[in-house]
Amino acid sequence: MDEMSDYAAELQKKDIRLGLVPTMGYLHEGHLSLVRLLDGKCDIKGASIFVNPIQFGKGEDMEAYPRDEELDIAKFTDEGCEVVFCPSADDMYPDGFQTYIDVEVLSKPLCGLFRPNHFRGVVTVVNRLFNLTRCSVAAFGLKDYQQAIVIRRMVKDLNIPVELVFGETVREDDGLAMSTRNSYLTSEERTLARLIPVSLNWAAVQASSGSNDCMRILKGMREILVSQPGIDIQYLEAVDTETLQPRRSINNGVQILLAVNIGKTRLIDNCHICHDREKV
Amino acid sequence: MDEMSDYAAELQKKDIRLGLVPTMGYLHEGHLSLVRLLDGKCDIKGASIFVNPIQFGKGEDMEAYPRDEELDIAKFTDEGCEVVFCPSADDMYPDGFQTYIDVEVLSKPLCGLFRPNHFRGVVTVVNRLFNLTRCSVAAFGLKDYQQAIVIRRMVKDLNIPVELVFGETVREDDGLAMSTRNSYLTSEERTLARLIPVSLNWAAVQASSGSNDCMRILKGMREILVSQPGIDIQYLEAVDTETLQPRRSINNGVQILLAVNIGKTRLIDNCHICHDREKV
Repeated sequence: MDEMSDYAAELQKKDIRLGLVPTMGYLHEGHLSLVRLLDGKCDIKGASIFVNPIQFGKGEDMEAYPRDEELDIAKFTDEGCEVVFCPSADDMYPDGFQTYIDVEVLSKPLCGLFRPNHFRGVVTVVNRLFNLTRCSVAAFGLKDYQQAIVIRRMVKDLNIPVELVFGETVREDDGLAMSTRNSYLTSEERTLARLIPVSLNWAAVQASSGSNDCMRILKGMREILVSQPGIDIQYLEAVDTETLQPRRSINNGVQILLAVNIGKTRLIDNCHICHDREKV
Repeated sequence: MDEMSDYAAELQKKDIRLGLVPTMGYLHEGHLSLVRLLDGKCDIKGASIFVNPIQFGKGEDMEAYPRDEELDIAKFTDEGCEVVFCPSADDMYPDGFQTYIDVEVLSKPLCGLFRPNHFRGVVTVVNRLFNLTRCSVAAFGLKDYQQAIVIRRMVKDLNIPVELVFGETVREDDGLAMSTRNSYLTSEERTLARLIPVSLNWAAVQASSGSNDCMRILKGMREILVSQPGIDIQYLEAVDTETLQPRRSINNGVQILLAVNIGKTRLIDNCHICHDREKV
């Protein structure tokens, strides 16, 4: 950790701009697309790998979370990263650690209802990774939509001098959003999971065909998701793209967000829907 | 605020180290001594003046807090500050602001018991002033001892690349710690306030004479403070210098901290006491 700090200070002294992709590792194409998003926005590309204990709740999959640091470092290096920062949990959370950051309003709904301290854990570690690496720009994926909004709010509210870039969700051929947690799915569960992008696409088509009633669209999505047994919907909501407050009408666009449990695996996904197909 | 941000970015680009004294203005010699403490630790000395609304509770003296920005800027300039940052409350807390930092354990006792959101307000604004000014070093006074410990913890926990320096309490000729709030005191109250440093000095003498029993020393201090009517003790404690946890024995030194109300004015003070007079 001191090594990263010293290196970051050296870069800053020389006015060399570092770009950062903060991850929990076990990389997929979604992560790597974020590294490419940094092209032209910084002088050196970097990434971090850290399975952050304080963003997991009790009974969540912290222990089971898959890890392959060696392969991850190779993937990041192949993608042009000159720095891969992999701190240990002991380094990051020594005895006596007690400082937390809260983005109070935006952290509450959606995932926040089911994972009460999750976003506090996320923004606290992201803030520290920014300070440790002194990065000038950082990239996050929009698959974690609420996370992106919450981090953006923290950066604005705390006047953090880091530019944020957000990468579109990268999907498998059948539409399932790429996620490290997809690796938990059995083949039957993986087939069921296909219903998530099917329901989101259906919603987008409804909106572009002129439907303006969020309740009706959510009801239709729900029917698709439970059309076969095995998907337990945790939440499914249509919200304002900025405030994350529930919206009844699509008007100039809403964000649909959902979390489902399939077996022991919790998956999230989201998409923007609006009347003008071009804007999807 | 954008001007400060841009200027800070320019300084950083040129590797010019800024030193910062964050204050709420209405300066006294304690503040100015902190500017001098920056000598040799940075390339440019700076200060901020901001009466931070989120560190005041309901019914506290936010509105009454004295201000004289013009005179303050002149004083800072005379002391060699090249930058004086005076943001407005509207700039600092626009609609939608919702991100707060908590140093959970160290913020709870002592002043934290009587001013529940005070330290959250302090560390949140200090963090932002660090980000806005991109200072390399910052100076705080030890008159606000718990504040100093809480800020130090935040800087460590969040890996903030700012060096902290702490200035000894500056006192009036009769021993009263300099404080902007001393200006609230009537002349009778000002005379009573003299008992605060008298009680702290008495404690230091007891310790250096070999007494090891904190309870006995606190009892003696209490008797001194209430020897004349008019001082209402809010708290008076002997605590570990680092953890702020109560201590029964002085052993290798404890910090005595107190808060009192005199009329409508709340004053705090503290001192280190130990057996070896040299260490006081």
